[in-house]
Amino acid sequence: MSEYTPLSELGEFGLIKLINEKIELRNTSTIKGIGDDAAVLEPQSKQIVVSTDMLLEGVHFDLTFCPLKHLGYKAVAVNVSDIAAMNATPTQITVNVALGARYTVEAVEELYEGIRLACENYKVDLVGGDTTSSHAGLVISVTAIGEIGKGEAVLRSGARVNDLVCVTGDLGAAYMGLQVLEREKQAFMANPDMQPELEGKQYIVGRQLRPEARMDVIYELRELDIKPTAMIDISDGLASELMHICSQSGVGATVYKDNLPADSQMLETAVEFNLDPITCIMNGGEDYELLFTIPLADYDKVKNHPDITVIGNITEASSGVNLANKHGQAFPLHAQGWKHF
Amino acid sequence: MSEYTPLSELGEFGLIKLINEKIELRNTSTIKGIGDDAAVLEPQSKQIVVSTDMLLEGVHFDLTFCPLKHLGYKAVAVNVSDIAAMNATPTQITVNVALGARYTVEAVEELYEGIRLACENYKVDLVGGDTTSSHAGLVISVTAIGEIGKGEAVLRSGARVNDLVCVTGDLGAAYMGLQVLEREKQAFMANPDMQPELEGKQYIVGRQLRPEARMDVIYELRELDIKPTAMIDISDGLASELMHICSQSGVGATVYKDNLPADSQMLETAVEFNLDPITCIMNGGEDYELLFTIPLADYDKVKNHPDITVIGNITEASSGVNLANKHGQAFPLHAQGWKHF
Repeated sequence: MSEYTPLSELGEFGLIKLINEKIELRNTSTIKGIGDDAAVLEPQSKQIVVSTDMLLEGVHFDLTFCPLKHLGYKAVAVNVSDIAAMNATPTQITVNVALGARYTVEAVEELYEGIRLACENYKVDLVGGDTTSSHAGLVISVTAIGEIGKGEAVLRSGARVNDLVCVTGDLGAAYMGLQVLEREKQAFMANPDMQPELEGKQYIVGRQLRPEARMDVIYELRELDIKPTAMIDISDGLASELMHICSQSGVGATVYKDNLPADSQMLETAVEFNLDPITCIMNGGEDYELLFTIPLADYDKVKNHPDITVIGNITEASSGVNLANKHGQAFPLHAQGWKHF
Repeated sequence: MSEYTPLSELGEFGLIKLINEKIELRNTSTIKGIGDDAAVLEPQSKQIVVSTDMLLEGVHFDLTFCPLKHLGYKAVAVNVSDIAAMNATPTQITVNVALGARYTVEAVEELYEGIRLACENYKVDLVGGDTTSSHAGLVISVTAIGEIGKGEAVLRSGARVNDLVCVTGDLGAAYMGLQVLEREKQAFMANPDMQPELEGKQYIVGRQLRPEARMDVIYELRELDIKPTAMIDISDGLASELMHICSQSGVGATVYKDNLPADSQMLETAVEFNLDPITCIMNGGEDYELLFTIPLADYDKVKNHPDITVIGNITEASSGVNLANKHGQAFPLHAQGWKHF
């Protein structure tokens, strides 16, 4: 006797009911959540920001090593990260999920448990969405909405010459975690009796499987009375994001190799995998840290902040976007990003 | 030499650029569209409504007979239809698209041409989205945002005893169009030299491939100074939607077989396919017409309206939800909806 319930037993309306009855609404701007043709929101006199992202099985995640609960959490976190990168406060999300008939009710509940946990942590309300079937893999599409005072939004285009370039947290770990997970998957496929070797890799694997949006830093910057001049979240890798800021702001930048924040587990694992840690940091992606620029005058406010590292400065556009070593030699950056097609 | 360009030649950033450079913004509430981590909107002191829907190849559409331009149009229209069903005015959409490497740049342009055309017709701004790869079929996820004055939203829960039950347009045609398209697909697969037989089926096939959101009726109801007491759009079939209104409003309803609006092409084709036209009307789905209730006192305002048909009335909950024939016999309705899993 199986302890799992096939989705077909519950049906679409049953599934919707199951998901909805556990939803809590936290924001006063949510007038009407799930249950009608659309949600009704009241942002008062604020501006709102809207961002959306879609994750597909086999492209953005691998269910062999990604637990559904983490996946649900991540799908919300990466969208909240975009709201953070606007300097806004996330308030609502909608979630569309497509899944195959082979999924059990328990699996869907696990996915939504992760979604709900992220909603709780980021204080956002799940106000809408669609659950449908997929003949292929699992697909999750999330749209996040946030609020912001008029004129408070931070775009990618506001960086000015002499601004400082800052990043939060450390970089490259999510990419390195993926390398570990893929190695263990290969080992498991060669020998299904093998247990995954994740000893000493928990941090980097966690960075890959369950990234956090840096809303904590957004709130702290407000407390420090710092308004970044430009900001972006690091989903495709530092190099690519820095080039977005520079091209949209019409400036150049120099970042310093020795200033790039890295975790020791990431560095050790890079050596183990024979990978250049700087390449992992610059092009790894999926760290969901924030890259932002601040006026030079704000240096004292951030210099001792444990979660913020000043990695370089904004220059004239004619200088280009460069990575400099400790001898002052600068090498032009190339954005690799992800080659989707 | 092929006249088509593979997506790989353009790359992700090239594709984004190609899509973005053709976008026009029309709404003053759109402060910043595509090009940053999130769009920035300013709904002034209005409430906003948000709705989202995802369409998957092989589940919601079949590219054998659905042109990409129509598909793009439909993906927007079905979301605008949800905004209409709230009595709101659509203002912005975001669109996530996942597609396989086999797609050409020309195919993607065709899809976005349909999306742009719908944006133009419904006066909405495309303000965000994501284009990514898919190992399976094409996936389109759209989120629509609309504006509405405080207290003007029409929910599913407002129907009152003695209200009139109204629908727009005619019903069952989209479902019948799908039957025709599937028959022609079977014939084509059996004999690829066959040309599809769509003579005399243009209306019903068009209803399936390119539905319209009834924003026209929303604007007309405002002009007639009618505020529906409850409203929903008909995506899953009249029976299912009527039962949503009744259960959420805590009422019953009786609709009359003889009052149900049907197009003659739909009726003829139903006979041809040996299908009961009433079943097609009640459970066919995908018509994207509006089902709404109005106070009895508004009857004179709608009775001669060419696009609105009064099909029944709201009763006490204890009477149930019924379909009545001309002899006054009433049969309880069963919502079939779509069995997704």
